[in-house]
Amino acid sequence: MNKKPLILVTNDDGIKAPGLRKLIDIMRDLGDVVVIASETAQSGMAHAVTIRTPLMPRLIKKEDGYQEYVTNGTPSDNVKLGKHRLLGRTPDIVVSGINHGSNASINIIYSGTMAAVLEAAIDGIPAIGFSLMDYMPDADFSHVDEWIVKITRKVLDEGLPEGVCLNVNIPRISAEPVKGIKVVKQAKARWVEEFEERKDPYGRSYYWLGGRFVNGDSRPDTDEKVLAGNYISVVPVRFDFTAHEYVDKLKFD
Amino acid sequence: MNKKPLILVTNDDGIKAPGLRKLIDIMRDLGDVVVIASETAQSGMAHAVTIRTPLMPRLIKKEDGYQEYVTNGTPSDNVKLGKHRLLGRTPDIVVSGINHGSNASINIIYSGTMAAVLEAAIDGIPAIGFSLMDYMPDADFSHVDEWIVKITRKVLDEGLPEGVCLNVNIPRISAEPVKGIKVVKQAKARWVEEFEERKDPYGRSYYWLGGRFVNGDSRPDTDEKVLAGNYISVVPVRFDFTAHEYVDKLKFD
Repeated sequence: MNKKPLILVTNDDGIKAPGLRKLIDIMRDLGDVVVIASETAQSGMAHAVTIRTPLMPRLIKKEDGYQEYVTNGTPSDNVKLGKHRLLGRTPDIVVSGINHGSNASINIIYSGTMAAVLEAAIDGIPAIGFSLMDYMPDADFSHVDEWIVKITRKVLDEGLPEGVCLNVNIPRISAEPVKGIKVVKQAKARWVEEFEERKDPYGRSYYWLGGRFVNGDSRPDTDEKVLAGNYISVVPVRFDFTAHEYVDKLKFD
Repeated sequence: MNKKPLILVTNDDGIKAPGLRKLIDIMRDLGDVVVIASETAQSGMAHAVTIRTPLMPRLIKKEDGYQEYVTNGTPSDNVKLGKHRLLGRTPDIVVSGINHGSNASINIIYSGTMAAVLEAAIDGIPAIGFSLMDYMPDADFSHVDEWIVKITRKVLDEGLPEGVCLNVNIPRISAEPVKGIKVVKQAKARWVEEFEERKDPYGRSYYWLGGRFVNGDSRPDTDEKVLAGNYISVVPVRFDFTAHEYVDKLKFD
């Protein structure tokens, strides 16, 4: 009997991203791995799902304890396809990433990486999103292994509370080693969007989304704060959007 | 001095959707209106943002107290464009919809309608998403006016708590009039995805996303439950994804 955990690996930077390849390498030491990732980068796709075109997954690699599919879908689609069609059974865990760039604070709302994780959590599957605070395609992932193994092993061994998944952000590599892991809250930071306006050859305006990240949250126990101190941030995340403290306070009659 | 509120109207079914036209009609009685909506339907786009191509809004209608823009962006893009570029000042409220179809319970996570609303709330702008429990393009919106006016007026007069926006779902028309408004929680319901597998002319599998909606939540104070009783559901929604009750409980050291 095979006692190895079944691990579904996906991401939002596409099948060729170095962050995905790194996560695959780490996970192959921990269990049987099925990769389902998008052919193209899906950054900024958030929880988008494909409803107007069909999904066409292709099995591109198959070895003992390892399969790799590439798809034309979004990160959410990939998890849906995995859990309902391609895996044959419910995976023991879904891991997503390693994202090239932060998914801390408000970035989670735009994140395909975390959408995949939430999609798993909806069905009660333990799930973790990993992101590195370095958006460069050639980002250095050489310091992440031990931390990702530690967090993943703990979740495989102990599970997660019902309806909760993890948003893990890892400081970019520096001269100083990462100091440890802190479980914290999503910082109240936001993007102050500053579109860059340009004119096309016919004089019509068009706009590139830019923006400046502003963290006005001085609390010590937020993801942004501990990342700045060279700690890994772990935020327990849920998919219930209700602001429960206001359900009994708002009145319309 | 113009005391009329400035109302930004958007949706995710595209600029031609009857639900949007209905919402515009209602809002023009309440204030100055700027519409920024997508040329094509954006259902299922969730909080996707456009980062690889520029946005090209076009002003297609301009009257006293009314402007209408069509864009190539997502619902989130449209709100970003409005609040930072096209409106000249921060709107007093953002309303999104009327969506053709439910955004109750887990549907909020896939919803472009609600992404637009969350995008406004991130910047502290009061915002409401309206959805009708009828996904048909020719859905009957004739019973919604008084309720949408009532909810919008209240939010214009009193504002909303910081970081909170509203997810409003309205029962489809029936012989019995809507009974009233209930402020409730997001139901713990989910889609049991059932992909339909087909073969292309070359024998390769492809999959259409289908699925069956399952509500296993028997609590009386959820959106699904009150909608079934012919009440309008109002869920106060926040963009802080933290599962606060677990921040102090999870340990990794």
